[in-house]
Amino acid sequence: MEVFGVKKLKGAPPLSWTHAKSTLGSFRNKQSQKNLKLTLICLFLTILILRGTIGVGSFSFFTTSDPAPEGSVSASAVGHFSEVHRGSKLSLDKDEAPYRLGPRITDWDEQRAAWLAENPHMRTTPKGRPRMLLITGSQANSCKGPSGDHFLLKSIKNKIDYCRLHDVDIYYNMVLMQPEMDDVWIKLPLVRKMMLAHPEAEWIWWMDSDAMFTDMTFEFPIEKYEKHNMVIHGWEAKVFEEKDWCGLNAGVFLVRNNQWTLDFLDLWAPMGENRGNIRDQVGKMFTAALQGRPANFEADDQSGLVYLLNTLREEIAPKVYLESSYYLHGYWVILSEKYEEFMRNNKPGTGDHRWPFVTHFVGCKSCSGAYGDYPAERCLTQMERAFNFADNQVLEAYGFQHKTLTDSAVLRTRNETTRPIDVLRNVGHDTTSRSSAEEA
Amino acid sequence: MEVFGVKKLKGAPPLSWTHAKSTLGSFRNKQSQKNLKLTLICLFLTILILRGTIGVGSFSFFTTSDPAPEGSVSASAVGHFSEVHRGSKLSLDKDEAPYRLGPRITDWDEQRAAWLAENPHMRTTPKGRPRMLLITGSQANSCKGPSGDHFLLKSIKNKIDYCRLHDVDIYYNMVLMQPEMDDVWIKLPLVRKMMLAHPEAEWIWWMDSDAMFTDMTFEFPIEKYEKHNMVIHGWEAKVFEEKDWCGLNAGVFLVRNNQWTLDFLDLWAPMGENRGNIRDQVGKMFTAALQGRPANFEADDQSGLVYLLNTLREEIAPKVYLESSYYLHGYWVILSEKYEEFMRNNKPGTGDHRWPFVTHFVGCKSCSGAYGDYPAERCLTQMERAFNFADNQVLEAYGFQHKTLTDSAVLRTRNETTRPIDVLRNVGHDTTSRSSAEEA
Repeated sequence: MEVFGVKKLKGAPPLSWTHAKSTLGSFRNKQSQKNLKLTLICLFLTILILRGTIGVGSFSFFTTSDPAPEGSVSASAVGHFSEVHRGSKLSLDKDEAPYRLGPRITDWDEQRAAWLAENPHMRTTPKGRPRMLLITGSQANSCKGPSGDHFLLKSIKNKIDYCRLHDVDIYYNMVLMQPEMDDVWIKLPLVRKMMLAHPEAEWIWWMDSDAMFTDMTFEFPIEKYEKHNMVIHGWEAKVFEEKDWCGLNAGVFLVRNNQWTLDFLDLWAPMGENRGNIRDQVGKMFTAALQGRPANFEADDQSGLVYLLNTLREEIAPKVYLESSYYLHGYWVILSEKYEEFMRNNKPGTGDHRWPFVTHFVGCKSCSGAYGDYPAERCLTQMERAFNFADNQVLEAYGFQHKTLTDSAVLRTRNETTRPIDVLRNVGHDTTSRSSAEEA
Repeated sequence: MEVFGVKKLKGAPPLSWTHAKSTLGSFRNKQSQKNLKLTLICLFLTILILRGTIGVGSFSFFTTSDPAPEGSVSASAVGHFSEVHRGSKLSLDKDEAPYRLGPRITDWDEQRAAWLAENPHMRTTPKGRPRMLLITGSQANSCKGPSGDHFLLKSIKNKIDYCRLHDVDIYYNMVLMQPEMDDVWIKLPLVRKMMLAHPEAEWIWWMDSDAMFTDMTFEFPIEKYEKHNMVIHGWEAKVFEEKDWCGLNAGVFLVRNNQWTLDFLDLWAPMGENRGNIRDQVGKMFTAALQGRPANFEADDQSGLVYLLNTLREEIAPKVYLESSYYLHGYWVILSEKYEEFMRNNKPGTGDHRWPFVTHFVGCKSCSGAYGDYPAERCLTQMERAFNFADNQVLEAYGFQHKTLTDSAVLRTRNETTRPIDVLRNVGHDTTSRSSAEEA
């Protein structure tokens, strides 16, 4: 199960990081207006992520020290870790064990298969789909922003609705499980924990708390990813040609619950370790290697992912699906003002530019209260609109809709009936017959 | 399917409301110290409910007018409605149709059975238990209280955790579906809506937003209620002998999704209709008829339930299970300071005085910001303690617990292992083998 073997690592083609800019030049000539827009968005995101930091620092925590790594240490992880540190010019003993999220597990596929054999009814949902566990979360303390917690409440209500409609389980995290992995890195130990504690889940689905489902009918097209272990919103050209650190978005992604993902986390996590000055040094290396990345910005998980995909392209890329045919992540600035247009011209179920699956409020730091990136008023208005836009699709089953997208009040959309089952069939909320992929 | 027939209604023994006090006197002689405590709690609750009102008034809404009732109007409901209004000395034409939550449905059991026959996989959860839908909710706008939304967020995270562990669906409501039924009455139209739109749910479980699960292992002992259609925390003697308006608690209850419950809602709802001065007049009648109820307090759903159980005792009471063997509702004031004691001496799974199933923060109006009933500090501290007390039981599966019950920070409770499946089996979070009822 050595997915990322030392030999393969050593045999990987050396990256021409210095050529990143010239590659970008030739790439641009081939690209449409769409990519220019993406680049602009990426520039925006760069500034936003630098400026606004979610108040994860207000997490307080304590943990006993991890046991020394037991069993065989991943040779590939060591190899890669050393490479990362050579790149960042840290004098690190090549033999030093890399930072780990937990002891190295090498037989996870076998352990999980044995559990599933014992619990065959847990293999799929009642509708026969692979089980998914959506994980999200927020800080343990009250937000500083005046409407921060209220938006978090609406955001989780929105996720509860989607997950009920599609038989997805939810774990809402409010603790820091691995002190070294704070801030944007908090998701990595959480993903690992959930994989190991929930063998019934075939997919673990991370979603930032500031992302909301806006197409309640759309369903993750599972067949498409049969041969993949990670699904993330991104663009091949931007990741591999431009080496753009915004070539993908790490705020929403899915990973398969298998050995590959455990190995992958073993490679990804050491980049975010916060001990000493490692994260700063790795951040400098990322900035040197990736397009558009700001200077003096510590290592972030998103850059780590772009870096890994390029460094170990042969090993990793074939298993990572960069999805852009629908909005697994959709940037609110280009979407949320068009909701009325979508409602006028289209119908839900497509998840794409006609009706975005997910709208992500990147840069709206409503919890920390740092609204510098966008006017607070604009953020709050658009978040409320996204919530109501999605809520209309939920309320349809009950015969209501919001008066307008900025209004929490509702209107009846149909009269009550003595034959509610017929209504259930007509509005398509008979969960047995819904298949959004087909509708799309 | 006429559960509450006119004949039966007319034949019901007349209630001796004026004897309520003397009945109380003889009852007290038989009761233990426990009941004295209950009476004190009830007095407390009386004051609390009067003083603090959840800010449902800030719901804004609009609805088109209901269609005229179609089909046969429930004769029993008319009969009962007239009786209620005679009691309140309103001059109401006896033939006037009662207020309704929707058009009268008489064949719901048949409609639902047909749907279940078409969707046999929806009959039970993967573990073979009847499907349940937990409904809760809060206002659409930000709370006035500074930590109100944060507590609502923790409260729904708490419910998500319980519901994930026990395969219960959740609907979180943030709209007012029936303008006349606002304030504490909001739950009635919601219950009906959810019954009709979710035929897969055998039970609809209402839970106030200020109630939290504090025994994450305890499971609703479904077999016990095989012949019942409603389960609510209450005491026979207090409801039927004392006619105490706090003889049961309407903040948490379950109803079976069947014709009986629809009929029952048809009887219950007219008492809460807010048109004109009906709710005030019915409130006066309740106060005259029920023990301990304050004057000048408009009709509330809880009094309505106690009144109905007494007025139509023969018809209704046999189907209503007044549960007090565990805490389906537990008053925080008598529970939350004992959590450490429970942890020291007992283990979860009993749901009763050893480890309460639900802790309900009655009187802590953290959303409206009206903290007059209890010091805000006390409420917030105890809510945080309840959340962490429950969260410890969730985190156990992942190897963590809170440093203390007032601390959001966590400690590791065990070292990581390379055999996570074994841990899963040991901590009892292997959902296939857990049966709390047996453990209890």
